Amino acid sequence: MLALTILGNNSALPSNGRNPTAQVLQTQSTAYLVDCGEGTQQQIAKYKIRTSKISHIFISHLHGDHYFGLIGLLTSMGLLGRTADLHLFAAPALEKIIQLQLEAADTELPYPLYFHPIVQEGVICNDGKITVESFAVNHRITCWGFLFKEIKNPRKIDPERVKSFEVPAAYYEQLQKGSDYKTRKGDIILNDQLTVAATPPKSYAFCADTKFHPALATKIKEVDLLYHESTYLKDLEQRAEARYHSTAEQAAKIALLAGAKKLLIGHFSSKYENLTGFLEEAKTLFEQTEIAREGVCFKI
Amino acid sequence: MLALTILGNNSALPSNGRNPTAQVLQTQSTAYLVDCGEGTQQQIAKYKIRTSKISHIFISHLHGDHYFGLIGLLTSMGLLGRTADLHLFAAPALEKIIQLQLEAADTELPYPLYFHPIVQEGVICNDGKITVESFAVNHRITCWGFLFKEIKNPRKIDPERVKSFEVPAAYYEQLQKGSDYKTRKGDIILNDQLTVAATPPKSYAFCADTKFHPALATKIKEVDLLYHESTYLKDLEQRAEARYHSTAEQAAKIALLAGAKKLLIGHFSSKYENLTGFLEEAKTLFEQTEIAREGVCFKI
Repeated sequence: MLALTILGNNSALPSNGRNPTAQVLQTQSTAYLVDCGEGTQQQIAKYKIRTSKISHIFISHLHGDHYFGLIGLLTSMGLLGRTADLHLFAAPALEKIIQLQLEAADTELPYPLYFHPIVQEGVICNDGKITVESFAVNHRITCWGFLFKEIKNPRKIDPERVKSFEVPAAYYEQLQKGSDYKTRKGDIILNDQLTVAATPPKSYAFCADTKFHPALATKIKEVDLLYHESTYLKDLEQRAEARYHSTAEQAAKIALLAGAKKLLIGHFSSKYENLTGFLEEAKTLFEQTEIAREGVCFKI
Repeated sequence: MLALTILGNNSALPSNGRNPTAQVLQTQSTAYLVDCGEGTQQQIAKYKIRTSKISHIFISHLHGDHYFGLIGLLTSMGLLGRTADLHLFAAPALEKIIQLQLEAADTELPYPLYFHPIVQEGVICNDGKITVESFAVNHRITCWGFLFKEIKNPRKIDPERVKSFEVPAAYYEQLQKGSDYKTRKGDIILNDQLTVAATPPKSYAFCADTKFHPALATKIKEVDLLYHESTYLKDLEQRAEARYHSTAEQAAKIALLAGAKKLLIGHFSSKYENLTGFLEEAKTLFEQTEIAREGVCFKI
């Protein structure tokens, strides 16, 4: 199971009590931070995310509202005594920016920070529990979307059945992978008589910031949860286009085209104090839409 | 008159609801920002400081809790349509850090940002209303204190008196500067018969971060308001020394040595949830002490 906590849902400026983009995707053991606008470390504390659980950070692009909180988080992790590896995925230019800031402070991080420059589409991370694919979205500067997929879970051994067929424990790992069992007599016991299906692997796609770009849908087909930016409402579609952003309706169109099971919308312009118009607009096309409200944890 | 609003008073990490260092010193027309930890733009909004009033920013040193909010503030000022000049005073290394971040975002600020590297002690700013002197404090990396002084206010013309002595209006500016008036007959009318004293110019000294350094006192003699860091209480004096920080008692000693009229203490370690111990400790030596509480505006 995956769970997504929203830490910030505003665009550009922090305003109306809303913070710039940041989200945490969690499995039982690990947390993956996606974008890290200014104030993310305060939001992480507010919503009781354990920073020690964060093993990977993914930055979509180098506009400040998506990463100005990163250097503060990295140094705070150091001050809190972190020693565990941290993997950072972002545009190549970020490495030098971090390095200069550490040098200026005469500081070395007390934990290994592995910088992984994102330079093309494809699988950029596989930690044995999930894979993460980068895909290009359509923004003013290079910007990456991220598709998180749980790795197929092993099938579960049915203890009664393996006992009744006298399967030695040494075969269990093969059974979990889906193999059938051949008895000493040469009989074949089909796998589904010995195991039960695991929870189906879940998926999450993060698409920010981008103008309306229908080709995106092919990259995130049938995703369980889709986050798509919706900076403006439909009446400002031209402004959205000019600024490489999307409207709520356009986000819903992408969800429809992709066959997503559920849509989250966020990255709201500071000009909107109230967000209900976004929900109404998206729902006319795609009923399973929710506002990416800060502090809310969406189970996938 | 000067007024100082505290935006952040915590050291290192944001914690206990306290933010990293930032303060705004205001005259009637202008605001001077001193340090700019992460989240300063949110604090500025919370306490209703008008960013358009900020004409000068002074950064004491390049530890993150004193400047990680700067790039966000600078870019937000641009997004809000600022066109007025902005003057930034800081260690030379900051210029490149800002430049790299603007380049990575493919952004140009829509207003002139003048970067003034601080490389020595002395007057670094004189805008006609105040002067600002930098002075070295004693920290792990180069760190500057700042002494703000109102420029001597012009004397006020007494309208009854100038009328009775038939002083032509052309002489008023000289009178305001303190000159006597010579009548056509050659009589001397002393200045204090024609003008009244202006409000005495006020001064403010900002000392952070620093270990106990008595020589500081000579640089801020008889300042009206002294802000001095006090990261720890006296029982952790050795830790303070090792980390180039001060205790509340040491801050009070500097206030005494300087003959300051009032002391503000701040930059509290995250380990202290409650701050009353700081006030008690400082007051045993220097009664006119206050905690630099966030959101409070101290009139000078």
